[in-house]
Amino acid sequence: MAERPPRAAFLIIGNEILSGRTRDRNLAVLAEALRGRGIRVAEARVVRDERDEVVAGLDALRARYELVFTSGGIGPTHDDITTACVAAAFGVPVVRHPEAERRMREHYEASGREATASRLTMADVPEGAELVFCAGTPAPGYRIGNVYVFAGVPRIFAGMVATALDSLPQGPRLRSRTITVHVGESEVAADLAAVQDRHPGLELGSYPQERDGSYFSELVCSGADEAAVAAAVADLTGTLDQRAIPWSAKD
Amino acid sequence: MAERPPRAAFLIIGNEILSGRTRDRNLAVLAEALRGRGIRVAEARVVRDERDEVVAGLDALRARYELVFTSGGIGPTHDDITTACVAAAFGVPVVRHPEAERRMREHYEASGREATASRLTMADVPEGAELVFCAGTPAPGYRIGNVYVFAGVPRIFAGMVATALDSLPQGPRLRSRTITVHVGESEVAADLAAVQDRHPGLELGSYPQERDGSYFSELVCSGADEAAVAAAVADLTGTLDQRAIPWSAKD
Repeated sequence: MAERPPRAAFLIIGNEILSGRTRDRNLAVLAEALRGRGIRVAEARVVRDERDEVVAGLDALRARYELVFTSGGIGPTHDDITTACVAAAFGVPVVRHPEAERRMREHYEASGREATASRLTMADVPEGAELVFCAGTPAPGYRIGNVYVFAGVPRIFAGMVATALDSLPQGPRLRSRTITVHVGESEVAADLAAVQDRHPGLELGSYPQERDGSYFSELVCSGADEAAVAAAVADLTGTLDQRAIPWSAKD
Repeated sequence: MAERPPRAAFLIIGNEILSGRTRDRNLAVLAEALRGRGIRVAEARVVRDERDEVVAGLDALRARYELVFTSGGIGPTHDDITTACVAAAFGVPVVRHPEAERRMREHYEASGREATASRLTMADVPEGAELVFCAGTPAPGYRIGNVYVFAGVPRIFAGMVATALDSLPQGPRLRSRTITVHVGESEVAADLAAVQDRHPGLELGSYPQERDGSYFSELVCSGADEAAVAAAVADLTGTLDQRAIPWSAKD
C-alpha cells in the first residue's frame, strides 16, 4: 500500500470571486505546485470578506487538513480582514512584525514613496507567524501553524507559493497519465467502470471535453504507485484497442 | 432598510478542478445570472468526487442557504456520483425518470446511436426531482428541494442556469458602481475607510489590479438601495477630486 499523500485545503477569501467580477486563477497554480511535492488539494472554499465566514472556514479546514492555504484579504484597505481573522482563529493578537516593517520602510524609501499607516498595516501579522516573502512586493505573506496566508493577486500568490514550497512536507510522488479518446464519454463508460473495478487502488477519472462543437474525453489514471498506474493504463488502452477506439496518451 | 437578498451557494464537484487540470468557469456564470435576479452567491466549495465529501458539502450548504447549485458528476461514467449523493442527502431512492428516458431514447434514435445502459443512467434522478432541460443535450439537470443539480461542462451548465432562472425567487436588484483609479490601493486606503464609515449599510470593496506591470484599483460600491449607492459614489469621487486623483466610473 502506497503512502497516503498529505492533504491540503485552499480558502479563497473575496467577495469579488463570489460575485463573478474576478475569476480565481490561484487554485490551479497551487494544485500544480503542490502536486510536485506529492501533496493533494482535497477541498477548496470561497468565502466572503466577513469575519465570521473567514474564521469558520479557517477553523473547519485547519482542523481537517494537514495544510491550509488562503488567498486574498491581506492588502492595505478596510476590507482586508484576513489577518484579523487568522489571529482570532488562533487566539493570538495581531502584532507588527519588525522585519516586515523594516523591509517595507526600506522599499518605500527607495522608491520615493511614503510608508503610510495604511501601507504599514501590511507588516501586521498574527503573533508567532513566520514571514513568507516573494519578489515584486515588500508586503509578506506568512505561515502560522498549518495555515499559509498569501496575497490574492495571482503573480504574488504564485511567488509566495514558490517561496514556501521547499519547506512543505514531501509526499509520495503522484503519477498520472491521460488517455484522450475522440468519442463522448458515454461510449467508453462501461469499459472505464470495468477497468476501475480491476484496479481498485487507482483513481480513474473521465473528463468530457468539447471543442468547436466536437466531443472528446480525457481519461486520467493517477496514483502514487507508478507500476500500478502503468498496469491500469495498459488495461485501459488494451480495451480501447479491442474496441477499435483510437487513443493518444500523455503524462 | 432594504430587503435582504436571497443567498445561494455553489458546490463544485470534481477532482479535475481541485487538481488544477480544469479551471472552473461556472462560478462566474452563475454569479452573474443570479445577480440579475437579485440573488447573491454567498459561498462556494469545491469537493472531490467522493460520496462522503459530496453529501457533507450538500448538507452543510442546503441547510444554510436558500438555494444551492451544484456542477459536475451527472455524466454517464463510474465517477459520476452526484445523483447518488443528492438522493442520499435527501433520503430518497434514485429512480429512472420516464420523461428524461423518453427524451434520451428519442435523441439517440434520431442521431442513429444506441441508448446504451451507460447513457440511460443520465435519466436517473433522486425521486421527486423536477427536470431542468437545456438545448444541446437530452440529459437533464434537476431540482430537488432547494438544490439545483447541473452538469459541469460550461456550455451545458450555462444553459441549465438559463432554464432555471425564471423560476428562482426575485430578490431586490443589486446596484453596483465601479470607480477605477490608476494608483495602488494603498494610496486610497484611508479615504476608502472613511467613506465606508460614513456609509455603513453599503458594501465598498477595493480590488487591486495589475496589468503590464502597472497597478490600478477598482473601487466597487454596491447595495440594494440605488440612492445610497449614488450618495456613497458621490462621497468617494468628491474625496478623490479633493486629492487630485483622477478616476473613471462604470456600472
